[in-house]
Amino acid sequence: MEISIAHLGPAGTYAESAALAYAKWLQTATGQISTLYPYASIAQAIRATADGKAQIAVVPVENSIEGSVTVTLDTLWQLDHLHIQQALTLPIAHALLSMATAIDAIEVVYSHPQALAQCQMWLERFLPSVSLVPTNSTTEALQYLRDNPQAGAISSQRAAQLYDLPILAYPINDHPDNCTRFWVLSLKPPENGSQTSLAFSLPANTPGALVKPLQIFAERQINMSRIESRPTKRSLGDYLFFVDLETDLQSAKAQSALAELRTCTETIKILGSYDVLPIGEALPTSSSRPEG
Amino acid sequence: MEISIAHLGPAGTYAESAALAYAKWLQTATGQISTLYPYASIAQAIRATADGKAQIAVVPVENSIEGSVTVTLDTLWQLDHLHIQQALTLPIAHALLSMATAIDAIEVVYSHPQALAQCQMWLERFLPSVSLVPTNSTTEALQYLRDNPQAGAISSQRAAQLYDLPILAYPINDHPDNCTRFWVLSLKPPENGSQTSLAFSLPANTPGALVKPLQIFAERQINMSRIESRPTKRSLGDYLFFVDLETDLQSAKAQSALAELRTCTETIKILGSYDVLPIGEALPTSSSRPEG
Repeated sequence: MEISIAHLGPAGTYAESAALAYAKWLQTATGQISTLYPYASIAQAIRATADGKAQIAVVPVENSIEGSVTVTLDTLWQLDHLHIQQALTLPIAHALLSMATAIDAIEVVYSHPQALAQCQMWLERFLPSVSLVPTNSTTEALQYLRDNPQAGAISSQRAAQLYDLPILAYPINDHPDNCTRFWVLSLKPPENGSQTSLAFSLPANTPGALVKPLQIFAERQINMSRIESRPTKRSLGDYLFFVDLETDLQSAKAQSALAELRTCTETIKILGSYDVLPIGEALPTSSSRPEG
Repeated sequence: MEISIAHLGPAGTYAESAALAYAKWLQTATGQISTLYPYASIAQAIRATADGKAQIAVVPVENSIEGSVTVTLDTLWQLDHLHIQQALTLPIAHALLSMATAIDAIEVVYSHPQALAQCQMWLERFLPSVSLVPTNSTTEALQYLRDNPQAGAISSQRAAQLYDLPILAYPINDHPDNCTRFWVLSLKPPENGSQTSLAFSLPANTPGALVKPLQIFAERQINMSRIESRPTKRSLGDYLFFVDLETDLQSAKAQSALAELRTCTETIKILGSYDVLPIGEALPTSSSRPEG
């Protein structure tokens, strides 16, 4: 049976690259063939999976430069049945695409705001006077190039190949270690991997309420590799916390931590217990879309 | 002497409303007259103040729905001499502006991505099939309205007045309690207010390293009203932490906490010790730009 994978589209986005890398891993590991389904937004890709329209969503959760992808965290908190099955990390290398014959001819650069931010120093150095125009995805930026040789777009090498557009500069991201972590989501209940992710809210107006959960982990030698606060959207100053723990879910220490956590949190959700896939280093830059 | 205030422009942005509210407070409290200087980005407004081109920057730091304004945190971490002098909170109420005669005629809606996100449910309900196009600010979205009666823009009531554009719907934000907290920044060293904000990085690869700083606050009954993690941009999984503490800086408990913090953090910065101004409830919606 074919596996349907939802992701932020259209073809050529980094989210598609992550979905392709996952599909390739899935085929090698299990023999299963996947079909990719691009969605107009990350929230739509996640919701399609929650509604059973796709079996899997591959969505970005964190970039090494820009930080959390907050829409992923917020959408996952709202939905009760989706869980993280795996994680993978993809290197991000941006290219400047344009029909211009030289960089100097470019007067406007289109891209997703995160990509523009990640190339800010390069742009200030080589294109100090261009206008920067945000788009909904790195791929959407490409539509402006064909009819305007003074336009540039920041996108991936793969997008340049897919849409047959020239690359004027590569890589142009300010930090060479730019990478994005993705989560693989599905309706399957949490199993037992090397990482466990939780989200919780705390009783309102309780000074120091966050110390207790962190102590629960520390006392049990559970390392917290990440903590992210998000607004509950109830009122300013009222937060949810997303934590990644370096522990499997079924261990005695994790189970005892969870039991104690339930006594000092308002709502707690187990987002998943999963392994980090050893893929993403060798990005599929050619058009390796699964045919099945 | 006139005070120069840098903010994200152009006129009509919520950042300008916050700068106006601050200027009004400043005039009432100290008799000082201010002039507002709009900048194309939040980072540019902050840098202009760090470079002495403006005396004060009024910048958003956190929205009750969308969370942290990460560019403010990241830029403040990079600069050593800017400090928070005051904080103020502004209610945010979005309006749908358009030359269309009815909502049904709208085919495309322009706005800043945060404003689009904050009106997502309203848009899905009343304009389910429109295209959503991101812009650099809520005010920038207005330029598309004059020539295109099928275009709408999400902006403030004040922007509608300033640019003489019709409001078709108001308020359209999904959460009525939508508000944004702003910081007032200048080169003045930290003084002593009721709130103290710090930022710190932790020694790399130290499991549980975050527990210690939080314990330091808890042991001294210092309430941490907010914690935000940001990537150090060195590598994925390496974070800075921004904390807001409900304590003045000069108290014995704050000084003792700081001394102990220095022993368990890598770098620590005191961002400011400041009071929260009792303004922002009555937003200046008319064109009350200070003339002086």
